[in-house]
Amino acid sequence: MAIDQSLRDRLTNSVAAGFPGQVSFTQDLVRMPSTRGNEHTVQDYMARALRSRGMDVDVFAMDDEAIARHPGGSRISSTHSRAPIVVGIHRPRKETGRSLILQGHVDVVPEGPADMWATPPYDPVIRDGWMHGRGAGDMKAGVASAVFALDALRRIGLQPAATVYMQSVVEEESTGNGALMTHLRGYRADAALIAEPGNEGLTRANLGVLWFQLEVRGIPVHVANMGTGANAIDAAYRVVGALRKLEEELNAETASHPLFGSHLHPINLNIGKIEGGDWASSVPAWCRIDCRIACLPETSAAEAARRIEACVTDFARSDSFLANNPPRVEWNGFFAEGYHLEPGSEAERTLTEAHRSVIGQPLETRLVTAYLDARVYALYDRIPVLNYGCTAENYHGFDERVNLASVQRTTAVIAQFIADWCGVEPV
Amino acid sequence: MAIDQSLRDRLTNSVAAGFPGQVSFTQDLVRMPSTRGNEHTVQDYMARALRSRGMDVDVFAMDDEAIARHPGGSRISSTHSRAPIVVGIHRPRKETGRSLILQGHVDVVPEGPADMWATPPYDPVIRDGWMHGRGAGDMKAGVASAVFALDALRRIGLQPAATVYMQSVVEEESTGNGALMTHLRGYRADAALIAEPGNEGLTRANLGVLWFQLEVRGIPVHVANMGTGANAIDAAYRVVGALRKLEEELNAETASHPLFGSHLHPINLNIGKIEGGDWASSVPAWCRIDCRIACLPETSAAEAARRIEACVTDFARSDSFLANNPPRVEWNGFFAEGYHLEPGSEAERTLTEAHRSVIGQPLETRLVTAYLDARVYALYDRIPVLNYGCTAENYHGFDERVNLASVQRTTAVIAQFIADWCGVEPV
Repeated sequence: MAIDQSLRDRLTNSVAAGFPGQVSFTQDLVRMPSTRGNEHTVQDYMARALRSRGMDVDVFAMDDEAIARHPGGSRISSTHSRAPIVVGIHRPRKETGRSLILQGHVDVVPEGPADMWATPPYDPVIRDGWMHGRGAGDMKAGVASAVFALDALRRIGLQPAATVYMQSVVEEESTGNGALMTHLRGYRADAALIAEPGNEGLTRANLGVLWFQLEVRGIPVHVANMGTGANAIDAAYRVVGALRKLEEELNAETASHPLFGSHLHPINLNIGKIEGGDWASSVPAWCRIDCRIACLPETSAAEAARRIEACVTDFARSDSFLANNPPRVEWNGFFAEGYHLEPGSEAERTLTEAHRSVIGQPLETRLVTAYLDARVYALYDRIPVLNYGCTAENYHGFDERVNLASVQRTTAVIAQFIADWCGVEPV
Repeated sequence: MAIDQSLRDRLTNSVAAGFPGQVSFTQDLVRMPSTRGNEHTVQDYMARALRSRGMDVDVFAMDDEAIARHPGGSRISSTHSRAPIVVGIHRPRKETGRSLILQGHVDVVPEGPADMWATPPYDPVIRDGWMHGRGAGDMKAGVASAVFALDALRRIGLQPAATVYMQSVVEEESTGNGALMTHLRGYRADAALIAEPGNEGLTRANLGVLWFQLEVRGIPVHVANMGTGANAIDAAYRVVGALRKLEEELNAETASHPLFGSHLHPINLNIGKIEGGDWASSVPAWCRIDCRIACLPETSAAEAARRIEACVTDFARSDSFLANNPPRVEWNGFFAEGYHLEPGSEAERTLTEAHRSVIGQPLETRLVTAYLDARVYALYDRIPVLNYGCTAENYHGFDERVNLASVQRTTAVIAQFIADWCGVEPV
């Protein structure tokens, strides 16, 4: 049911007509500092935005028990978000097309020291065609793209001729439990599209990701008697050394992987956060390190976790201090497997055509070494999931920014994809 | 003016008679969690205790400018204490003896994770003859000793026949500025005694101590692109490696030192506290490490500091990331030189006799590789300073405790020392 060029052009023009409003909507999202646990106001904003567009809106909480029972559930602690999930529901007059999930996350990672930003992190300043701000790229511009792609249809008197679920989720940055919760709530469709920033490319596969916290406790003493005490910070860093060796082993093993074998160093271990000790003149009694590591799509999270635990245990046995004070490994976030988008799906073909029509280039595919919510739809809904979006830079860094021309282009691609995939009917 | 055995015996008995009250007083001190900045209530308690004993009491604030101008002034920041210094002043009816400063500090180091204590850190539980609690040993038992040594004289109708300044100070655990402030306020005497826990030994010399904070900033990115970012935590730990090499160099240089040459490893570098990064999946942008290092008595703090700064600068130049992102070294506490108690003083001889009389053993001397307030009196007042006190364990650690039999013995020694050094007169 390929759409004709005239509809394509009308949609592209309609996206352009709505773009000032889209930029302003994106700025509203960026102004809300929706770090983990602080997504309440932005989710209320999304619920109002979807409701004002005539959608039914379902606002629901995480079901911790259901998440804990599911193999794709990541570990939950009090540090995780209690903000709700918001789903806007579009029903056509008559269901003739293929249904679709449009998904985006509104949580953002911490902004870090404010003085390392050129402009304040939650001030969506536009300079030279880029909008700046924490979350501007990852992925508030993408969330706005999906909403305004639907608006572009409506502006020319059309709407999808199939059910569309617009899912605004949280917890993408530390567990992926928000996306999983939409699955557990029962939402299903024929395909899913997630407008994560991706340099206008389609994600072919991504890695699994695990989070863990390593804790070492030591026997503290006055530093004058340092020889008789054990420094928990130094001991923890010795464990990091052992984990770095495991990281190299794991990367060596990826060489034969059909997709990630071409990647120089797909498995990254990140020492993301460290805290230890209380006083410069006391030998530190404790140290906690927050780590993140990836695993290949075919590796289960449990298998990857066993490997890490074995590495820590084996190293500890060989260390005179750690043998008596074994480090603790706690899984405190992502416990998620990677996925692979099988080539050849109708959904991919439909996106490829829309992309070629708007961008004038073939759609390139990419491998992603980070966590993506797409895994939920690929692994558990078992549907084609298109992770596709605009160009952004420095996400998780300072001066994060998103390219507005790219946002407009990819919004037009998404509008054409929706029209083609779902079909259209008059409003 | 050696005192006779009968007075010695009466004083020892008088200390025993007052000991239940002394234990209770010490427990009161331990119950107050007087970590840095939180010494206000314990200083009020001390002021009331000294006033109730008929002393004039001088309560005064730190003079930051005067401290900054003095070569023995340590670096002050907003993290340091604003609690006052308390000095109780005893004047005799007629000044016939030698004047004395009795000094003690009431600040304590942080207690660390409460669950690593057998009993709560500020609950002065007595088990098997030891009183437990943060600060019980370092040095609230010592502060109480000095007060109750004077009480022991009064109980038998005597008082020192010379001026005695009882100084209760703060900031011994991070700058030594409290002790320096008593010097700047103008207090002087013929000798000083500080009842720091010392296993019933006299300190012959101690090391200088410096505190600094090392800060590294990195370029953060999403961990998926880890190769293009620099991990500030890893980079900071590379600097620690360079500082560890300097530590070994400095220890090698101590071999020829007349006093510390016999010590296996006098110069300890402690990595006491670390903090860095905000998120497991973001390459960390910052890391701060609080360090403490010692230097030999003859080395000035400025000289030791230059050596450390040069080490950090030289290493940074050789590191591809740090060369462009030079680490910052900030002196944020102790900037203090060591001291040496010259053998042969009258004060030492007087203490030796009191010690032999009570303990029945020769007075042993010891080298201390930690900071001691004694340096102020030795270096700037240029008087004999006796750092002498009871047996305590695990100070700066968990389950810190002080041996009560040892407290009673050393209190008797101090009482005899006061009577002998200052002379006595009827109350």
